[in-house]
Amino acid sequence: MTRWKLTLEYDGTAFLGWQRQAEGPTVQQVLEEAVESFCGERVVAHAAGRTDSGVHALGQVAHLDIARPADAHTVQMALNHFLKRLPVAVLAAEAVGEDFHARFSATARHYRFRILNRRAPPALERGRVWWLPVPLDAAAMHRAAQALVGHHDFTSFRAAECQAASPVKTLDRLDVTRLGEEIEIAAESRSFLHHQVRNMVGTLSLVGRGKWRERQVAEALAAKDRAAAGPTAPPDGLYLVRVLY
Amino acid sequence: MTRWKLTLEYDGTAFLGWQRQAEGPTVQQVLEEAVESFCGERVVAHAAGRTDSGVHALGQVAHLDIARPADAHTVQMALNHFLKRLPVAVLAAEAVGEDFHARFSATARHYRFRILNRRAPPALERGRVWWLPVPLDAAAMHRAAQALVGHHDFTSFRAAECQAASPVKTLDRLDVTRLGEEIEIAAESRSFLHHQVRNMVGTLSLVGRGKWRERQVAEALAAKDRAAAGPTAPPDGLYLVRVLY
Repeated sequence: MTRWKLTLEYDGTAFLGWQRQAEGPTVQQVLEEAVESFCGERVVAHAAGRTDSGVHALGQVAHLDIARPADAHTVQMALNHFLKRLPVAVLAAEAVGEDFHARFSATARHYRFRILNRRAPPALERGRVWWLPVPLDAAAMHRAAQALVGHHDFTSFRAAECQAASPVKTLDRLDVTRLGEEIEIAAESRSFLHHQVRNMVGTLSLVGRGKWRERQVAEALAAKDRAAAGPTAPPDGLYLVRVLY
Repeated sequence: MTRWKLTLEYDGTAFLGWQRQAEGPTVQQVLEEAVESFCGERVVAHAAGRTDSGVHALGQVAHLDIARPADAHTVQMALNHFLKRLPVAVLAAEAVGEDFHARFSATARHYRFRILNRRAPPALERGRVWWLPVPLDAAAMHRAAQALVGHHDFTSFRAAECQAASPVKTLDRLDVTRLGEEIEIAAESRSFLHHQVRNMVGTLSLVGRGKWRERQVAEALAAKDRAAAGPTAPPDGLYLVRVLY
């Protein structure tokens, strides 16, 4: 039995998120089916981040155990073969020790959120950006974001259905950068609460459009109340970029 | 009657190219239909580049004449409204003189071709890149490409169905650059022959994978014979980036 660490890229618009469910296709399901097609084994895949419906991955990490002996190249090529009709790709496969756990061994998760900030709607980037036609002040968003960096109780940015034991997390980075018509938000933490990135982005968008003053973000954090923060940004612009171990 | 210059972005995978045809949706057709929905007028749209099926645009330019008086903002917003279910967006609308012609007034066209050069197939960039899993030498491709820059008879890189009066064109730029897993080819000319960019890219890919020596590109050009050059790269990786007037 070998434990495989798989690095995955996927287009979230094609899936109802990572986690298996009855209503439709998920990344976990198609990956587990690809493994079964490859070696006839029914496995359970565990991911570093259980991305929601519509959320993309450039470097999701999952692990699963396969009894059939194979080298890393074969595992990668075989899974990509059985996934070829779907917008999921195995970027890397690596044999790891049985103490490796994609979710619990992770030491950092990097997310990116992309806002398309122009009058015209996205054509090529449909489903891959949050379109906000009103001009946003990215520098103000960045300054306001710094109040969220550090060790805090993130209750104000936590989804009601979040299952984390504690709302206290350490946010290592929250940078807002304008790149032409796009605004990119980079968020890094050991782990995030459910919807935390999307709730932080939705709140910062209020600062960007001038509806909120910068200090209101700090006040929302201090309130420890979801109702005190801004709306949840849509999944379209969110990418799980990298997981560190 | 006002002549409108429209700058367009579109996802080529959704269309059978620019030009109207009976077999399926084209960008010209949906744009003309959007104009009719807006003002009830049946117009003919002319584009700077009649992109093929699957070819994308970041800055295609088209012109058309509308009798109904309107300002530029209204034209842009109205067309985007009627195009909203389709992956086409009007990035800009500008009233121009009646001597302006999107195709014939253009002084330069900039294309970009994207190759994804990694073992794993594209997931997020499906249909938007040419996937070549074999390692490519981008520096060799760039050096070989320089033989094509300048004033030449491009018969070797011209599609059989090309309708241009002459195969002689001046290629101003053909730069091949590696950006991580991607190789980007930038091509600039006043105008291109049908399939010229895709045929140049397909030929350079032979150099990149070591099947051809660099000087064979110059020899293929000198042969003035389509059979002397390499294959036609797929449309997926091709973007019409900008048109200058």
